[in-house]
Amino acid sequence: MTGLTYKSTGVDPSRADDALAQVRARIAKTRRPEVIGDVGSFGGLFASPGADMVLVATTDGVGTKLDLARLLDRHEVVGTDLVHHCVNDAMAMGAEPLFFLDYFSTSRIDPAVFARVVGAMADACTAHRCALLGGETAEMPGTYGVGAYDLAGFLVGAVRRDAILDPKNVVAGDVCIGVPSSGLHTNGYTLARAIVARAAAAQGKDMLAVLDAPRQDLGGSTLGDALLRTHSSYLAAFRALREATTIRSIAHLTGGGWEGNLPRALPAALGAAVDRESWTVPPLFRMLVEWGGVAEAEAFDTWNNMGIGLVVIVPAADADAALRALPEAVIVGRVERARHDERRIRFA
Amino acid sequence: MTGLTYKSTGVDPSRADDALAQVRARIAKTRRPEVIGDVGSFGGLFASPGADMVLVATTDGVGTKLDLARLLDRHEVVGTDLVHHCVNDAMAMGAEPLFFLDYFSTSRIDPAVFARVVGAMADACTAHRCALLGGETAEMPGTYGVGAYDLAGFLVGAVRRDAILDPKNVVAGDVCIGVPSSGLHTNGYTLARAIVARAAAAQGKDMLAVLDAPRQDLGGSTLGDALLRTHSSYLAAFRALREATTIRSIAHLTGGGWEGNLPRALPAALGAAVDRESWTVPPLFRMLVEWGGVAEAEAFDTWNNMGIGLVVIVPAADADAALRALPEAVIVGRVERARHDERRIRFA
Repeated sequence: MTGLTYKSTGVDPSRADDALAQVRARIAKTRRPEVIGDVGSFGGLFASPGADMVLVATTDGVGTKLDLARLLDRHEVVGTDLVHHCVNDAMAMGAEPLFFLDYFSTSRIDPAVFARVVGAMADACTAHRCALLGGETAEMPGTYGVGAYDLAGFLVGAVRRDAILDPKNVVAGDVCIGVPSSGLHTNGYTLARAIVARAAAAQGKDMLAVLDAPRQDLGGSTLGDALLRTHSSYLAAFRALREATTIRSIAHLTGGGWEGNLPRALPAALGAAVDRESWTVPPLFRMLVEWGGVAEAEAFDTWNNMGIGLVVIVPAADADAALRALPEAVIVGRVERARHDERRIRFA
Repeated sequence: MTGLTYKSTGVDPSRADDALAQVRARIAKTRRPEVIGDVGSFGGLFASPGADMVLVATTDGVGTKLDLARLLDRHEVVGTDLVHHCVNDAMAMGAEPLFFLDYFSTSRIDPAVFARVVGAMADACTAHRCALLGGETAEMPGTYGVGAYDLAGFLVGAVRRDAILDPKNVVAGDVCIGVPSSGLHTNGYTLARAIVARAAAAQGKDMLAVLDAPRQDLGGSTLGDALLRTHSSYLAAFRALREATTIRSIAHLTGGGWEGNLPRALPAALGAAVDRESWTVPPLFRMLVEWGGVAEAEAFDTWNNMGIGLVVIVPAADADAALRALPEAVIVGRVERARHDERRIRFA
C-alpha cells in the first residue's frame, strides 16, 4: 500500500509560496508608514489612528464576474474590482482607506493566474494609498471546477468621528448627485451572462463569438470589453465633493440596484424622487435589458446601477458647487418624505 | 420570448435577507461599546483604539473541513472554527480581538444552513468579546456544487505597541511551551478525507459508516466526532500565560505543521529542538498516519499540529511559572542556534 502524502491528495503549499513570490515586490509597494513588520507573520500590524477616529470595515466579493474574467482571460480586472468595491463601501461612510486583506480560494492554485489577480489588487491598493496587509490562499480540491476560484476582500478605513456620513443628517429637499458608473461594476453578472448565452443561442453563435465581436451600438468596443470594465473607484470624486460641498450621505449602488441601496443613505422617514431622464442609460444596459426582455422596474430596482454607480446627497444650496467640482456628475433626484408603500425610491 | 428576471437565473437577494433575519438577534449580542450605528450600512463602524495601540488584522478560511461538516450535518463547527482560527492568529501577535467580518459564498443560499453557520460565528464572537461587524453573502450559481459553500473570516484585534510579540526578542535557551490541540483544527482535511476514503474502500464500507462508528481506539467517540472537534481557541491560555510569564513570541501551528509555523515565531538565526516524546500524539493522528501510511516527517513537517496547536516561547526562568499557570501545557522544546541546513526545527 503506497503511503499518502499531502501533495498526492492535491494540496501543495509550495504552489502558494511560488505564487506569492511573484507579486511580493508589488505588495511591498503598498506599504504605508503605519505598517509594522513584514508580511509572513500570523497577522498584519498597522498603527492605530488616534482615538478621535472611527474605523470602517467592509467585506466584498466580485460574484460571477469571475467566470466572465476567466472566460476572456482578463484576471486582472477582478483583482482591481475587489479593491475598488471595498474602497467605495468604506468611503460611503466617509472613510479613507487604510489597509486591505484578500482571500483567494481555488481547487488548485495556478501561480500565473494568482499573480495576475493579486498583482492587480496590489496595484489598486497602491493607487489608493492602501496597504495590502495580508491574505489567505486556500487550495480546496474538489470545491471549485477546473480553473475556477473565488475572491473575498476586506478593507479597513478611517474617518474622523465628526465626519461620519450619517443618513440621519439628510433632510427633505436635499439633492441627489449621481456619478456615472463604468458599467455593471461587480453585480448582476449571473443575469447578464444568461442574457448573452440566450442571445448567442438564438443567433446560432458561440458565446465567445458574441462577446468578442466589436459592436457599433457599443461605440465600437466588444460586448466582452463593455462587460469587463473595471468597477469604478469613486475616491477621487468623493474627495472633490467633500472639498466643494457638505456631503450628507452616500449610497454606493451595487447589488440590489436603486431601491436596494439608495434608501440605505436615507433616514427611515425619507425617500427620493429620481428622474430617470436626468442621465442617459448607457448602451450596455439598454442592450441587456432588450435582449433579455428584462422589465425596466426589475432592472432599476433589483438588478443594477443602470449607469449611475454612486449617489451623493448634498444640501440643495450645494448642488451647483457639486456639479462644478465634478463635471461628469448630474442631479438625478431629490430627497422627499417617504410614501406609504413599501418602496422608498419613486421614479419620476 | 419570456423576459428574464434576476430570480429566474438563480440569484434571489431575498434569500440572503431571510437568512440574515434568523440570526440578527445573535449578531446583536456581539455588540461592544465601540460599535457605532447599525448593521446594514455600507461599512461597519468601530471606534478606533488610541494611538498607543497597534491594529492586528488577519484573514482565514476553514478549508475542506467544510466538506466533512456538510457530510455529517455539523455546520456549526466550521462557523466556530473560523472565529477561533482568526482569534488565535491575531493573538499570536499579542492582540486581543476587536471585531470580525465574514464572507459566505455559495451557489444558492440555504437560509437554515446559513443561520447555523453564521449563528455559530456570532456566538463564538460573543464568547470572545469580539463584535461581528459585518459580512458579505454571495450567491454564485454554478461556482459551487449543490449544498457546497466557502467561508472566509477577517478579524481585527489590537495590542499595545510595547506588547507586540516580536520574534526578534527570542534568544537561544528560551523554552517552547506547547498547548494541546483538540485535533486537526482546520488543516489537513484533504489528506485526512483521502485516508478515510481509502480505508473505507479497503474495508468494503461506505465512508459514512466508517465516520459514524464509535471506536475504542478513540476512547469511544466516532471518527467523525474526532475529525470535527472545534479548532481550539487559545485566548484564555494566552491570557493565563501573559499574566504569569514574559511571553517572547507565539506560533499558531496550522497548515504547514511544525516546520511551516514554529520558525515564524523565531528570529532568522535561531531554530528549535523539539522533543516529540514530550507529549502524546493523540490517537486520531496516530490512526490517520497509520491508515494512510503517511511518513512521520511529512506528518509533523507539513501536514499538521500532531497534538500541539500552540507554542508559546518564554524565558527558561519562566518555564515553571508557565506550567503552573496552564496545567495542560508541556515543555516541548528549547530554542537553539539554527543549523546550516534548510530545516529550522530539529526533532530530538
